[in-house]
Amino acid sequence: TATSQNRQDENPKDERFLVIEANIDDQTPEIYGYIMDRLFAVGALDVWLTPIIMKKNRPATKLSVLAAPNCLNKVTEIILQETTSIGMRFYPVARAMADREFIVIGLPWGDVKVKISSYQGKICNVAPEYEDCRKIAEKSGMPLKVVQQLALKEAMSVC
Amino acid sequence: TATSQNRQDENPKDERFLVIEANIDDQTPEIYGYIMDRLFAVGALDVWLTPIIMKKNRPATKLSVLAAPNCLNKVTEIILQETTSIGMRFYPVARAMADREFIVIGLPWGDVKVKISSYQGKICNVAPEYEDCRKIAEKSGMPLKVVQQLALKEAMSVC
Amino acid sequence: TATSQNRQDENPKDERFLVIEANIDDQTPEIYGYIMDRLFAVGALDVWLTPIIMKKNRPATKLSVLAAPNCLNKVTEIILQETTSIGMRFYPVARAMADREFIVIGLPWGDVKVKISSYQGKICNVAPEYEDCRKIAEKSGMPLKVVQQLALKEAMSVC
Amino acid sequence: TATSQNRQDENPKDERFLVIEANIDDQTPEIYGYIMDRLFAVGALDVWLTPIIMKKNRPATKLSVLAAPNCLNKVTEIILQETTSIGMRFYPVARAMADREFIVIGLPWGDVKVKISSYQGKICNVAPEYEDCRKIAEKSGMPLKVVQQLALKEAMSVC
Amino acid sequence: TATSQNRQDENPKDERFLVIEANIDDQTPEIYGYIMDRLFAVGALDVWLTPIIMKKNRPATKLSVLAAPNCLNKVTEIILQETTSIGMRFYPVARAMADREFIVIGLPWGDVKVKISSYQGKICNVAPEYEDCRKIAEKSGMPLKVVQQLALKEAMSVC
Amino acid sequence: TATSQNRQDENPKDERFLVIEANIDDQTPEIYGYIMDRLFAVGALDVWLTPIIMKKNRPATKLSVLAAPNCLNKVTEIILQETTSIGMRFYPVARAMADREFIVIGLPWGDVKVKISSYQGKICNVAPEYEDCRKIAEKSGMPLKVVQQLALKEAMSVC
Ligand code: NI
Ligand code: NI
Ligand code: NI
Ligand code: NI
Ligand code: NI
Ligand code: NI
Ligand code: NI
Ligand code: NI
Ligand code: NI
Ligand code: NI
Ligand code: NI
Ligand code: NI
Repeated sequence: TATSQNRQDENPKDERFLVIEANIDDQTPEIYGYIMDRLFAVGALDVWLTPIIMKKNRPATKLSVLAAPNCLNKVTEIILQETTSIGMRFYPVARAMADREFIVIGLPWGDVKVKISSYQGKICNVAPEYEDCRKIAEKSGMPLKVVQQLALKEAMSVC
Repeated sequence: TATSQNRQDENPKDERFLVIEANIDDQTPEIYGYIMDRLFAVGALDVWLTPIIMKKNRPATKLSVLAAPNCLNKVTEIILQETTSIGMRFYPVARAMADREFIVIGLPWGDVKVKISSYQGKICNVAPEYEDCRKIAEKSGMPLKVVQQLALKEAMSVC
Repeated sequence: TATSQNRQDENPKDERFLVIEANIDDQTPEIYGYIMDRLFAVGALDVWLTPIIMKKNRPATKLSVLAAPNCLNKVTEIILQETTSIGMRFYPVARAMADREFIVIGLPWGDVKVKISSYQGKICNVAPEYEDCRKIAEKSGMPLKVVQQLALKEAMSVC
Repeated sequence: TATSQNRQDENPKDERFLVIEANIDDQTPEIYGYIMDRLFAVGALDVWLTPIIMKKNRPATKLSVLAAPNCLNKVTEIILQETTSIGMRFYPVARAMADREFIVIGLPWGDVKVKISSYQGKICNVAPEYEDCRKIAEKSGMPLKVVQQLALKEAMSVC
Repeated sequence: TATSQNRQDENPKDERFLVIEANIDDQTPEIYGYIMDRLFAVGALDVWLTPIIMKKNRPATKLSVLAAPNCLNKVTEIILQETTSIGMRFYPVARAMADREFIVIGLPWGDVKVKISSYQGKICNVAPEYEDCRKIAEKSGMPLKVVQQLALKEAMSVC
Repeated sequence: TATSQNRQDENPKDERFLVIEANIDDQTPEIYGYIMDRLFAVGALDVWLTPIIMKKNRPATKLSVLAAPNCLNKVTEIILQETTSIGMRFYPVARAMADREFIVIGLPWGDVKVKISSYQGKICNVAPEYEDCRKIAEKSGMPLKVVQQLALKEAMSVC
């Protein structure tokens, strides 16, 4: 069936990724934005922070990175050098992804790229690009949420 | 030993499960309750949400689903169609579970099912069912916490 | 009525308290436990931490202190000297409290103080003291939750 | 100016509300949903939960209620009887609200009420009612997010 | 005494501020960064986000703004037009602030402004400016945490 | 290269660990501190708590334990007997760790052990031990953060 073919496509051996995580209890929160930027710069696919509680009433942060296995060394190096963490753990994950293509729709104030995602040949999400909408909001003075709504409305008429 | 037998029981090959996760930064929080209901309806064993922080100061949500491997296709379909996420990751987990049986205890306002859990032949938890207690609280006007305490007290006298 | 008398009792002018708060984005989480101890030591009635998100993707912490107005100077001094915060805000709050008295119940492994709270002459909560239960759990090897359940069961039979 | 008139409208003396809060560290999380329902039933305007950290490594919950002052007694009674909290604090807040009116738009699968909010005579938000959209999603099998998007698109064409 | 004078300085009538808050359960998290920028641009002194749980299993966000009272209209306008919130609440807070002055210390890679804060005539915090340290880290390739440590070490030798 | 040798050192077969997790929605938060202590006592390498949201508006807690595989039975036993959880899941993780050695630096009020961590032969973190600094802060009355800063400054001059 289409479903089982799809599952095969999604999980070939070479589409394995790693989640790399460190629990950090002794670092100023000020520098996480910089660390996230550096991790994206070496190829991290996603970086996120989770508030956690560690021993001795510490409101700590779990730093998580999703990356391809060939990024592990670079991610390790950044975490050990830029954070106060002296160790991290990692485990493999598979991924299931929708297919994506882009269209461009024109609004009176400029163009917006729109990501059209499909699963098993059926559109499953329509998402105007955040940065394009933000630029129009800043230029036009319109609320950003309205720019997003107008772009979505336009894209829904097209696709 | 009992312990090692127990461990064998808990982790046979066919008791592997999946944790399926998506980081979601562009969806209205309004609809997570509905999505959780839909995921439970297709057989998810547990569904939970974690507040996370993603790039660009986004207070995002990690959606996590625990499910048997044969649920993966249905869970994938719901996540891709019902959320704004266009991808998810998943990894296998083993489970260790206590043995469970149920007794019914009678309170003046109605019956309450009580879950008695055991580990290595020894009771490890006694838990009155939430929905039974809630119904009695609503009917009787008693505080729900008191209904739970009375049911627990009764069950502890019995088991 | 009893209700309106009760409300008068609860909110006389001299029962006003302060909530004192600081958003902290540049301090190691390691030392919050110590800071909490110091705040309790100068008379804080409660101290709690809330995970928040500040500008530039900072997973910061809001430190909150509930204290009587005559504690404000001491709390201010501790926050400014022990944390990296250089400012705090505060606002007055009223409090509504249940009446409390204590009983002592005997378990086979030792005594447990139990706090009986009442509102408008009616018992509203029965709570075995955590530290008493913890000591029995440590001494007896019983699970702490079971000690709490046994103490609660015993107290419910008495009051 | 319109602005200052508006501010007067928003903050007359009789539009003061209370935020009533309790830090709860010794209650099963199971029953918060029930407690929220009970608080809304006596007139609470909003109820929300915040994860906090209290002394001794306790991952506690702050329960917050927004209510009119004449609800204080009922809210106090529910918190003291239904939760394990034996005290709460409260403080007055003013509110600034947009004006709201409702329209109904027709989708092929049913009607959806849409809340049109305005500030200073200008539309500031267009929000299809969640429950109406949910019912259509359940009946039609369409994703809830798509029902919301279609309802929003329709409403934007009208207002 | 110095203390009481200090308290008078800190809380004159014209140093009252407002905390303005909205619970938001139906907005894409994507745009909070933009909203925070806009709020700072009209004079907000601080903006922060707190993960909260609202009815119907919604992982919502509380938006909080600290601002002078004369900013209320502008903050109200931004919240109502840029977020999906249709109402907010606010309450007055006083502030206690340390005195602040700045020194500049020279590192081999550039200058760093350092904020020296004092309370009652005694230094209570020494904080190298984040942006200055970040620029040096980017230019030199040194870890940002090391730049901060070197700047702090240098400043401690001077003041 | 040094890098690949290092990676081999870090991930030999016998350096695999487990993350063991339970979602807990029906336990008093009061006892997590005790449970964490018990888990560390049987050899857990790290224990942390994450605020999560489960079905029916439950502000629950995810308990996570990092442990060597030979600790699994003891960790399982503690979780099943001390918490209300009746099941847990676990998955293997690898670890990448910096090399660590300790130096002792003398402050006027006492000695402080300092952990010097290195990655690929290069120092990547310098961290005064929390408990040593806390003792000096308590004895001397100096702010803990200042003791940490002085110890760090001293250690940076040495290594
Ligand atoms: Ni550490
Ligand atoms: Ni995006
Ligand atoms: Ni996205
Ligand atoms: Ni249950
Ligand atoms: Ni700061
Ligand atoms: Ni207590
Ligand atoms: Ni308590
Ligand atoms: Ni709504
Ligand atoms: Ni709403
Ligand atoms: Ni700063
Ligand atoms: Ni359960
Ligand atoms: Ni440490």
